[in-house]
Amino acid sequence: MIERSPLAPDAFPELPAIDGILISVAESGLKYKGRPDLLLMQFAEGTQVAACFTRSLCPSAPVDWCRQHLAGGEARGVIVNAGNANAFTGKAGAAACEALVTSVADVLTCRPSRVFAASTGVIGQVLPAARLEPCIAVMAETLSADCWADAARAILTTDTFPKGATRRVAIKDTTVRINGIAKGSGMIAPDMATMLAFIGTDAKLPAPVLQACLSAAVEKSFNRSTVDSDTSTSDSVFAFATGAAANPDVTGTDDPALEAFKAALDDVCIDLAKQVVRDGEGASKFITVNVTGAEHDAAAKRIALSIANSPLVKTAIAGEDANWGRIVMAVGKAGEKAERDKLAISVGGTVIAREGAAVSGYDETPVTKHMKGQEIDIDVDLAIGTGKATIWTCDLTHGYISINADYRS
Amino acid sequence: MIERSPLAPDAFPELPAIDGILISVAESGLKYKGRPDLLLMQFAEGTQVAACFTRSLCPSAPVDWCRQHLAGGEARGVIVNAGNANAFTGKAGAAACEALVTSVADVLTCRPSRVFAASTGVIGQVLPAARLEPCIAVMAETLSADCWADAARAILTTDTFPKGATRRVAIKDTTVRINGIAKGSGMIAPDMATMLAFIGTDAKLPAPVLQACLSAAVEKSFNRSTVDSDTSTSDSVFAFATGAAANPDVTGTDDPALEAFKAALDDVCIDLAKQVVRDGEGASKFITVNVTGAEHDAAAKRIALSIANSPLVKTAIAGEDANWGRIVMAVGKAGEKAERDKLAISVGGTVIAREGAAVSGYDETPVTKHMKGQEIDIDVDLAIGTGKATIWTCDLTHGYISINADYRS
Repeated sequence: MIERSPLAPDAFPELPAIDGILISVAESGLKYKGRPDLLLMQFAEGTQVAACFTRSLCPSAPVDWCRQHLAGGEARGVIVNAGNANAFTGKAGAAACEALVTSVADVLTCRPSRVFAASTGVIGQVLPAARLEPCIAVMAETLSADCWADAARAILTTDTFPKGATRRVAIKDTTVRINGIAKGSGMIAPDMATMLAFIGTDAKLPAPVLQACLSAAVEKSFNRSTVDSDTSTSDSVFAFATGAAANPDVTGTDDPALEAFKAALDDVCIDLAKQVVRDGEGASKFITVNVTGAEHDAAAKRIALSIANSPLVKTAIAGEDANWGRIVMAVGKAGEKAERDKLAISVGGTVIAREGAAVSGYDETPVTKHMKGQEIDIDVDLAIGTGKATIWTCDLTHGYISINADYRS
Repeated sequence: MIERSPLAPDAFPELPAIDGILISVAESGLKYKGRPDLLLMQFAEGTQVAACFTRSLCPSAPVDWCRQHLAGGEARGVIVNAGNANAFTGKAGAAACEALVTSVADVLTCRPSRVFAASTGVIGQVLPAARLEPCIAVMAETLSADCWADAARAILTTDTFPKGATRRVAIKDTTVRINGIAKGSGMIAPDMATMLAFIGTDAKLPAPVLQACLSAAVEKSFNRSTVDSDTSTSDSVFAFATGAAANPDVTGTDDPALEAFKAALDDVCIDLAKQVVRDGEGASKFITVNVTGAEHDAAAKRIALSIANSPLVKTAIAGEDANWGRIVMAVGKAGEKAERDKLAISVGGTVIAREGAAVSGYDETPVTKHMKGQEIDIDVDLAIGTGKATIWTCDLTHGYISINADYRS
């Protein structure tokens, strides 16, 4: 593993057991040596599943498989491997995914359509499913409730730290737990295509409600973060709800009893999404871009992404330069309504430009100090509407080039 | 000036005089010392003008000025300064631009609306127009037809070489000449926002015809090139047609007599656009991305741009790695119709992947050799339609980070 990101949290959080979820990891030796690279999760009968997948039009074989079977709404297991993405592998890849899922279904004694899969790693190589079969048999014998930290480590590729988050919340006086683990280091690490996240909860929620909650949470979290604007063929976020907490039924997504759960799920996803950004390849600064006053929220998001994805903005921040001219450029190229003569830009809370021009007599001292820190805040106010959005990203450094250009396949 | 780009052409071409165009350059000392940074072109009475501008919604003051007066169709002069973009400068910037243009109009004895302007350099500082006035008086006294090379040098900012192109062509048996000069090094060099190009011809063409020819040429050239996906607040391409060649009138843009001229203008623009890419910040490879078989041409262009702008594709090429998995990723994220199981990818003419999977037994030797060269060709065939597009770009190297992150404003 490469040196731990300077933006990494101090420690992996304590993730409690989730009633109805058992976990096992194994070392397949497929690509990595001396570390687990396979994860199996078994879910109690009746566990509901929801998921969000990459918008890539060239998705991996496991993404195809999961999309096909998500409508069933139930999951008994999920199998994850690190080191081979089984993407761009045609019919052979689809067959390999089905073989893998079928052998998991055999040991869990369920239908293959109840088993979900995610693969992360090299693109273009068919997953050698047969080589994983012995591991699956062993994992089925060693399932345990208390190894979420092991699970978080087993799914890593070029990540520099494991990522986890947990929350406890009530649905109508019944306490439920939400655990989440994720991997991702850049939208794509070298040849390691994928941001993956697995969320487990003991809440009792029907799949359509779970899906609505997850989709909303993903939009507020993973879809608000960017490292290098590149989208993987395999990005997948799953939520599994075992129902073991036996909370009273909710009437639907809009049930007020669900408010706290939804907020906690948002929280877990935002926490994980920020951890992925903090592990961005070569990242030395964590950047929060806030856009306000846009025509509408979608416009604000597009402008914020234009700033967050601009190589010139990202390199300026790497150089600790509050180069607001580049921010203006990124606003201008976003293609959304903006009036130069109303635009205001702040960095670290200090207003640098207002009404389309530099603030006269602006004192650079607090901005210079802010730029030397690890957490950078950029606020852009368009002053033409009420649309707003926040995007998290990291800077673009020599480290990114070294990881991605100096690497050979 | 930074070290000359390794992709630079051997020499600046011989640009002949264009009847009806006089040129002068001067050293204003505004930002650069010991080199010309001001360019004045004077055009014969009746000279027709066409122009294409940045799509940025935060354009510079000179872009606003030129847009406002382009409809007149006539130009008597253009003034260009390097070192200050006069962008994001509000009403004071607009006033400065008008003052500059008015002092040029005074020495050329024409209406200010016949004088066009372009500024390139730092964003956010009002152009000190009064400081340029003495230079303008001197330039008006030293106009000459034979200094296109000086003109090409006077407009540079962080470019590492001057850019020029020339063609000779006939309109109905009358020979006409087209000269072009351009600046640009990255869509935006450090704080130096702008790609500028100035094309002069002695052809006799009414402004609407000239505009149609220029717009078509820009779409095939400058709009097909990208360094870092960032769009400047000041990008401008101008064409000035003096009419001195006195060719017979053309009936309109579709007149067959105009075919050769249109092709030559395309050529000049493509030549200049490629030179801008060859001067891309930190560039070590010139990359041609060809997409064929897309649903339509616009889809092909979007897919080609997705590949050309992908930091992961660009860094892989910098690392001389024919990483076709990243090309698949970029196709997938473009948001245009693609069928994984029909996709074919070639690098340097060697087919690497076909029908959604790696070619079995593919010999890497010629690809590895190709990747070590300076000219990289990527061909992607989607095999679902007849849409096609070519985009030119460069790789993403430590040089880009050094230029943009290690710089301080």
